[in-house]
Amino acid sequence: MASQHGDGRVGVAVLGSTGSIGRQTLSVIDEHLDRFRVVALAARVASERFLGQVSRYDPEIISVSEWTPGLRDDMGPVVVGGDGLIAASTHPSVDIVVVASSGHVAIVPTIRALEMGKTIALANKETLVCAGEIITSLAAVRGTQIRPIDSEHSAIWQALDNSPIEQVNRIILTASGGPFRTVQATTLAQVTAAEALAHPTWSMGDKITVDSATLMNKGLEIIEAHWLFGLSYDQINVLVHPESVVHSLVEFVDGGLIAQLGLPDMRMPIQYALTYPDRLKLSTHRLELAEVGALHFERPDTERFPGLRLAREAGIAGRTYPTVLSAADDEAVMAFLAGDLRFVDIPAAIEVVLEKHQPTDVTVDSIWEADLWARIAAREAVTAMRSRR
Amino acid sequence: MASQHGDGRVGVAVLGSTGSIGRQTLSVIDEHLDRFRVVALAARVASERFLGQVSRYDPEIISVSEWTPGLRDDMGPVVVGGDGLIAASTHPSVDIVVVASSGHVAIVPTIRALEMGKTIALANKETLVCAGEIITSLAAVRGTQIRPIDSEHSAIWQALDNSPIEQVNRIILTASGGPFRTVQATTLAQVTAAEALAHPTWSMGDKITVDSATLMNKGLEIIEAHWLFGLSYDQINVLVHPESVVHSLVEFVDGGLIAQLGLPDMRMPIQYALTYPDRLKLSTHRLELAEVGALHFERPDTERFPGLRLAREAGIAGRTYPTVLSAADDEAVMAFLAGDLRFVDIPAAIEVVLEKHQPTDVTVDSIWEADLWARIAAREAVTAMRSRR
Repeated sequence: MASQHGDGRVGVAVLGSTGSIGRQTLSVIDEHLDRFRVVALAARVASERFLGQVSRYDPEIISVSEWTPGLRDDMGPVVVGGDGLIAASTHPSVDIVVVASSGHVAIVPTIRALEMGKTIALANKETLVCAGEIITSLAAVRGTQIRPIDSEHSAIWQALDNSPIEQVNRIILTASGGPFRTVQATTLAQVTAAEALAHPTWSMGDKITVDSATLMNKGLEIIEAHWLFGLSYDQINVLVHPESVVHSLVEFVDGGLIAQLGLPDMRMPIQYALTYPDRLKLSTHRLELAEVGALHFERPDTERFPGLRLAREAGIAGRTYPTVLSAADDEAVMAFLAGDLRFVDIPAAIEVVLEKHQPTDVTVDSIWEADLWARIAAREAVTAMRSRR
Repeated sequence: MASQHGDGRVGVAVLGSTGSIGRQTLSVIDEHLDRFRVVALAARVASERFLGQVSRYDPEIISVSEWTPGLRDDMGPVVVGGDGLIAASTHPSVDIVVVASSGHVAIVPTIRALEMGKTIALANKETLVCAGEIITSLAAVRGTQIRPIDSEHSAIWQALDNSPIEQVNRIILTASGGPFRTVQATTLAQVTAAEALAHPTWSMGDKITVDSATLMNKGLEIIEAHWLFGLSYDQINVLVHPESVVHSLVEFVDGGLIAQLGLPDMRMPIQYALTYPDRLKLSTHRLELAEVGALHFERPDTERFPGLRLAREAGIAGRTYPTVLSAADDEAVMAFLAGDLRFVDIPAAIEVVLEKHQPTDVTVDSIWEADLWARIAAREAVTAMRSRR
């Protein structure tokens, strides 16, 4: 991919440049400044880190959600507020938009970028979970590509490698199983936020770490995979694999499987999303299977971890159900982290909210409405559950 | 791939149609008679089985190495003797030649088929081990494809999936480790042919089963991979994996690995070699990793199993050394199976022969000469070793 703009280098917009994925995206670009230039940087606030990025990469446009001391007019066009992300994602010099900002805020900028024919490198979950229908049909119509950045979907994307989807029997998303993989159902009611945050393999934010422990993280990935690869829900399996070395697998109709493996290093899927179809050298630790010694696999237990079942059901029900699932999970996890909800009540609260939901067709507006409704409903559910304890 | 000949179906020649790979090739074709027709069948002798195949598939040409009672002139053109395999592999109606006959006899028919622009589906080891230089340069010049049929090279081929070889860091051939994987060096001297033939995973012929036990099988595969994929020997690793579920892996320059997995079923690589780039449905048992539970990996022990080292050295030395390695191994294994050589003396005898060899450039003639010389030298080495016991 060569840019049609500027000096021939591919222009990159990084939405969420100060987060973990955003920072690693910039570190990948640092190694390939002959290929890429940072055209747009967007973050929630103009932190020290963000200002440092701006001065280092000298982008053509910067975006923050609110004006912050430290921002100066001579930094170039600074777009503040809700339109900032859209201005960044649709800037004429942008070829690839790395969507690494969190939450629903990424949905509209992604839609606008797709309308402009930009390639999307996607690290934001909500975009596909809530708006998968809009996003993927738009990408199909415009012939633009959505390249996954998280390790499981990148693994599936790599394993598929342009194979026609008709040749796929099923895909298998691997899950670490989280810290409570071997904990009995009776004990699970007592586990604390501190225990949930002691995730065995990856170092992640608190929300996603709890989602790993409930397997809701994997449930949301099922919905993303459905949209990203055009597979039916019964073609998407989950397999617990504590070592997290096999990042996911594709089973083809001839019974053969292709898997992608590696040590945990998000720079690999980030770089592949930027350089596809090329693979460039990356200085990273190499996986030596002989050193790992053994890889283990087991079926996920949807009795102890009903989040997986709820996500699958919400995905199949479609419409605004996945948005409600995601928003209710957000609220329930925050309540758990605050000590207001037991671990086992996270899926229970989500289920209460899902059961109450009156779904509507998916539009940008209905996503926002369903999200807001679900958050209120989830807080009510949490309060009701607390009062019963 | 559609045939340029006949009724639009792809014409297949099966060299070695009564062997295990030959029979499984026909069973794959049976499931896709809309795509393939059997144009040529070749076997060593016109056994009952072969005559049954001839009557079932009604090929345009049949080939046997010697006239056998049961052959009839009304079976169509029957070519007997050395030219039979060539007549079969170069028949005008043939699009794909499945080279499943054993030994050096396959080399010239493969060369002639490549010269005619036929696609080769290769199950014969000697073709690449002995004549890799001739075969691969011819295929490159003619733009014809050599598609591997054995599970390891098929796995690499599938994992590469047309990636430029410059993007490959290394490939990793997996090995079951054989029945003596955990046997101590001191005990290894006493092991019997019967013990060697109790191979844990695959059901194979005696020769290849002993080669699995010495790891010479994997050594020969290193040489094949060198020619097939154009990789240097230091890019080809071997990893012991007792469950034989991961069939091999490719590590790319970005540190990511792609692996091909499956249950042992040779019909899968056979079918893929015939239908590439399509994958067609195959009725086979599916690999359920949760049922397997654990996959193990360890480095091969070249102290106890020096065959791997010898093969690598012969491959690097090139010229007629790999032919000598293969022929000497053949003789040493036969001597072991006859009780004339200890297990640990198989690589020792091969090393004696390799050390004595005066290499020449690789030609069809020099391969035959080196093979013959190596067999005589190996028998002398066996006799000398027996007399010292």
